[in-house]
Amino acid sequence: MTTQQKKEIPVPQVEKRQPIPKQNLRVPGPTPIPPEASEAQTAPMINHRGPEFSAMMKRITLRLQYFFQTEALVMTYPASGTGGQECAIVNVFSPGDHVVSITIGNFGNRMAKIAEAYGLQVTRLEYPWGEAAEPASVEKRLQEVAPYKGVLLTHNETSTGVTNDIETLARIIRKHNPDALIIVDAVSSLACVPLEMDAWDLDVVFTGSQKGWMVPPGLMMIAASPRAWEAYKTAKLPRFYFDWEMTRKSLQSKWQHPTTPPLSVLYALDVTLEMMLEEGRQAIFDRHQRAGEYVRNRAKALGLDLLADHQYASNTVTAIKVPEGIDLKVMLKKLREEEKTVFAGGQGQLDGKIFRIGHLGYFTEADLQSAVDNLEHVLHDLGYKG
Amino acid sequence: MTTQQKKEIPVPQVEKRQPIPKQNLRVPGPTPIPPEASEAQTAPMINHRGPEFSAMMKRITLRLQYFFQTEALVMTYPASGTGGQECAIVNVFSPGDHVVSITIGNFGNRMAKIAEAYGLQVTRLEYPWGEAAEPASVEKRLQEVAPYKGVLLTHNETSTGVTNDIETLARIIRKHNPDALIIVDAVSSLACVPLEMDAWDLDVVFTGSQKGWMVPPGLMMIAASPRAWEAYKTAKLPRFYFDWEMTRKSLQSKWQHPTTPPLSVLYALDVTLEMMLEEGRQAIFDRHQRAGEYVRNRAKALGLDLLADHQYASNTVTAIKVPEGIDLKVMLKKLREEEKTVFAGGQGQLDGKIFRIGHLGYFTEADLQSAVDNLEHVLHDLGYKG
Repeated sequence: MTTQQKKEIPVPQVEKRQPIPKQNLRVPGPTPIPPEASEAQTAPMINHRGPEFSAMMKRITLRLQYFFQTEALVMTYPASGTGGQECAIVNVFSPGDHVVSITIGNFGNRMAKIAEAYGLQVTRLEYPWGEAAEPASVEKRLQEVAPYKGVLLTHNETSTGVTNDIETLARIIRKHNPDALIIVDAVSSLACVPLEMDAWDLDVVFTGSQKGWMVPPGLMMIAASPRAWEAYKTAKLPRFYFDWEMTRKSLQSKWQHPTTPPLSVLYALDVTLEMMLEEGRQAIFDRHQRAGEYVRNRAKALGLDLLADHQYASNTVTAIKVPEGIDLKVMLKKLREEEKTVFAGGQGQLDGKIFRIGHLGYFTEADLQSAVDNLEHVLHDLGYKG
Repeated sequence: MTTQQKKEIPVPQVEKRQPIPKQNLRVPGPTPIPPEASEAQTAPMINHRGPEFSAMMKRITLRLQYFFQTEALVMTYPASGTGGQECAIVNVFSPGDHVVSITIGNFGNRMAKIAEAYGLQVTRLEYPWGEAAEPASVEKRLQEVAPYKGVLLTHNETSTGVTNDIETLARIIRKHNPDALIIVDAVSSLACVPLEMDAWDLDVVFTGSQKGWMVPPGLMMIAASPRAWEAYKTAKLPRFYFDWEMTRKSLQSKWQHPTTPPLSVLYALDVTLEMMLEEGRQAIFDRHQRAGEYVRNRAKALGLDLLADHQYASNTVTAIKVPEGIDLKVMLKKLREEEKTVFAGGQGQLDGKIFRIGHLGYFTEADLQSAVDNLEHVLHDLGYKG
């Protein structure tokens, strides 16, 4: 087309905007938002280079460090959890570096793919979906594939509802390779189940706002150990948007960001962090453990099969096998339309074979009870005998 | 540190959260949000893989295409405007490609830096800050530096308050190099001043939610011409988060995203797009033109010097030279604290030398009048004789 052929694009015909429905949203993120935090988003915009912003950002950052259990600066970016995976990789590695990807599901595979897209040499230690990375076999395999510069791990695999024992895995990796960079995707675990970045000697840990933090999606948080910052100095993968140093400098000198941060999500996070401190870290972990146990027990009582190895079953998301004779699409639609209850389907190789119930962030036991009650009704309506 | 030296990170002592003040926020983004859009953010979270989301995303995307004036799919990412710069570059170029960066300020320089960070060979055509890229000299220089694969341009340079004549520049580039990829940073111009992606034959155009779109920061929108999509097929720069194909596939097959989108910003955008259509594209452009003229005329009447060449002065942001004898920090603080009016300072080489008044997105003429009235008071309080 040349500029001579000027063509006007007309106003599109679209469906009218409908009110967003209030549902029992039981997917593993986005999670429901507490009313105080939701309301906080409506505060006026401010200058992200002004003192009001700096005061808020300092408070948020220090509190994030507490929940990460780290003395390292927690850096924040407008991004999704996948952005966290990329940010973790591009700041510490160089093309051709050998990394080991311990993958137990879809999001572990995604991080491995990112590493490959950036030209790393990736060795996958894959475990069947539904299982955790078994420490003894990890130890054996690591010795076989050495040397390697880093290990990519998923704390809680959102696609399968399995939580890796990161503390043990990190100890094994460190014993075998003291300089290894241990990269942990904690998107759907942090602030829900125990994770202690410094005590467990993890090097890069990242998470996303729409999970345990009880705020809308749009913010990614990431922290790097002194060992990771040392690696940063020689890491040659190309990067700019996700570069750490630019962000560190802005945060540490002014509690600001090099680019425009997602203000309304930060307003909400400022509120939820306060709520989380009031509830207490251990109490939050306990609540998630009770939630996991409740959902698993109810599912088993209904005669349903859980995907996850019971020893490693996640306390933030439960994956349930679709029972014989049940059409998953019909079941999810019926739940959504008739019961206002929303579960997630499966991903990748589990598409159509499982559904997932999220129980992280902002929920009450009544929300979970109602969700499983509705599941029970719908299953029976669909002829499930259990 | 070894895992033996377990160290607990205590709850930090922080300043108490203060209410976010309502100000006359006259920075060139984030811009104030209309109450209806601000309120829309508080709608419940929904499943970003469900039908409610798809219905919203289809409507938003088609309307974005109208404002971009393109038949190309407008893709959306959780990111800032800088993310748009990176996204534009990594999808169409390969290491070593020669690109010409026409830069007239800080954001033009940033895009050139990103291209260099990714290993492109960048030739800069630099213009003094405050001036636009002069078409005749661009034409001459392009011939001297050929061959090149693409040209990086800024439509509206937020740091200097100058709007390039992209239509003319694109025509010159296309005449000289029919296959050139014309990449346009329209972060602070799109939806405020005329831009017609298809008619002007631009290849990549991107913008950010916190500017003319009247919603909070956190969303980046980008579109690519058929020529850019053709270049994508052979572009070898590493990428994953900002990859186009993954996003295109999700949007075009399901009106969803490969990763979690910033829901509350999208809720607000769904509302503002409706408001923008009601006001009308031309009426929005006219309102911004009146705003630009108003602020420039008032500044001149106060005896202040404008940074921008009058022929290319921006209708979304006005840069004003700090008058002799005035301490900029004191002036901005007084305006903020006493008059609840917030202007932006200068960036890079203009830090301390200019201040900037934003007049884009959601504003009334009364907002601008009050802002300049307050500027006048404060200047006189500080002894300015004008």
